[in-house]
Amino acid sequence: MEAAADTLRLYPDPLCGKLRETVAGLHGVTSDRVFFGNGSDEILALCTRAFVEDDGSIGFFDPSYSLYRTLAQIRNAKIQAIALDADCAWPAPDPETADLFLLTNPNAPSGRLYPEAQVEDFCRRARGVVVIDEAYVDFAAAHCMDLAQRLPNVLVMRSLSKSYSLAGLRAGYAVGNPDLIAALFKIKDSYNVNRLTQAAALAALRDQAHMLDNVRRIKATRQKLAAELTAMGFQVHPSEANFLWVKPARPAAQRLYELLKDRKILVRYFPGTGTGEHLRITIGNEEQTERLLAALRAPELDNSTPMS
Amino acid sequence: MEAAADTLRLYPDPLCGKLRETVAGLHGVTSDRVFFGNGSDEILALCTRAFVEDDGSIGFFDPSYSLYRTLAQIRNAKIQAIALDADCAWPAPDPETADLFLLTNPNAPSGRLYPEAQVEDFCRRARGVVVIDEAYVDFAAAHCMDLAQRLPNVLVMRSLSKSYSLAGLRAGYAVGNPDLIAALFKIKDSYNVNRLTQAAALAALRDQAHMLDNVRRIKATRQKLAAELTAMGFQVHPSEANFLWVKPARPAAQRLYELLKDRKILVRYFPGTGTGEHLRITIGNEEQTERLLAALRAPELDNSTPMS
Repeated sequence: MEAAADTLRLYPDPLCGKLRETVAGLHGVTSDRVFFGNGSDEILALCTRAFVEDDGSIGFFDPSYSLYRTLAQIRNAKIQAIALDADCAWPAPDPETADLFLLTNPNAPSGRLYPEAQVEDFCRRARGVVVIDEAYVDFAAAHCMDLAQRLPNVLVMRSLSKSYSLAGLRAGYAVGNPDLIAALFKIKDSYNVNRLTQAAALAALRDQAHMLDNVRRIKATRQKLAAELTAMGFQVHPSEANFLWVKPARPAAQRLYELLKDRKILVRYFPGTGTGEHLRITIGNEEQTERLLAALRAPELDNSTPMS
Repeated sequence: MEAAADTLRLYPDPLCGKLRETVAGLHGVTSDRVFFGNGSDEILALCTRAFVEDDGSIGFFDPSYSLYRTLAQIRNAKIQAIALDADCAWPAPDPETADLFLLTNPNAPSGRLYPEAQVEDFCRRARGVVVIDEAYVDFAAAHCMDLAQRLPNVLVMRSLSKSYSLAGLRAGYAVGNPDLIAALFKIKDSYNVNRLTQAAALAALRDQAHMLDNVRRIKATRQKLAAELTAMGFQVHPSEANFLWVKPARPAAQRLYELLKDRKILVRYFPGTGTGEHLRITIGNEEQTERLLAALRAPELDNSTPMS
């Protein structure tokens, strides 16, 4: 509120100095290891230009964040999409391949968390830069922020869109090797993060208790919803994120997606082998969760008896 | 203020729908001719990627906006810098040369406005896309927005950083051929303009009276300051922008810049042939203008007697 004032006539701090100091303090690093972006999406786009040559390659798991493929196409890079199985288990990828590897951990849409040891081993053997996209990590039991300090080719990225509930603000950051951070600074737009976002992000990052409360509430709802859906016959994958990846017994995922949409309840459906049998259900508030469960208990949507 | 609320948890409108409708209404075009960016700097950067091939070229006048050269270097494009004379007069550039030509009008740092007829003739003969960067045009007697409607290879760009005094917000837009606009949409970050900027920019654009008052005040101060500086022996170029481009008699420009800086008065000095003999003085408020004039009247800075 204070920032929505006469000072808006002034250009923003191009270096996001206070924000980067605050992030550095949170993670116990120096601020030359921190980059702040106009959402972590901007950081991903910058990485595809800073770390990938014109005939280079970009790798990622499939499924993971669908933007990765789009960014690789915009960059006109070779795409190395490593297929995950239905459980989205760690696929032991060949680390020699990509100039830039984008690794969502916890994975989306499955919510699966890959152990730090596996991620570290992969990063150590990787030829290029690895971005560990921890957009959902505040909802998880562990994180890989240590690798941003230990390994020279790793950036760990965080977002304020999920655990801080500030998707409208566009605020994300990356932590890692100062040389990688400097490369991002070199090509970014001068004033990529506006004054209002800098002020609001600073306030949000300084109020860790608020974020942790938010996370606690969402994790409690996640646990409750997982139990209810399991009881209804859904196969519910263990989730370390703010959504559940579930496989309905019947009706089939796409049909159930449409029936819920008719009732103004929006869940995510990703067509395709493996993903097409699942739905991704974002954890809402108590009221939204009750509405979802009530809808699923209606006879037409009843999931309790598997189809013969 | 209303937008700094619970709705910040929601992603921004990726298409800036309301903003683009408002801009379209202001300029009498359809909204498929409008692109909104995270500052016009972002639009310039997108243009260097959307309209320039990997072995392509980017042209601009020298001097003009210093970011153009930086963006061309980041894009690794051939640079075609067309030297302006000391008066920054229209140099009749060869239009066949660049994939993308970035044309500041009114020019910075001189404040010189090029007539629409000359600009139109150049654009009609240009091989590539011409961006007419009208960042300062609200302070000028004329503009080229009509060309955005008439010519297929032209984008006319505006900023909210100058006449709307909202540099901290990061808000700028481009108007032109729907195919060019679509190309920018194709490669932009999904959520390039955050919710707060969208809300504040909308409010600002809907209050044209406030902007016009601002402009009227700055133009009145510009006229007064130009008269005072001329009386003091400065050569003052006619300005259609919110700054004056002046050549001091004595002390020399660089020395005067430093003497003013010692007195906490910041003006712009651009080293180099032609520019190095001038200062760019941004029009401030009444108090700032009085402080500048008082400083210039001090014996040490006295500009009234040319050096023998």
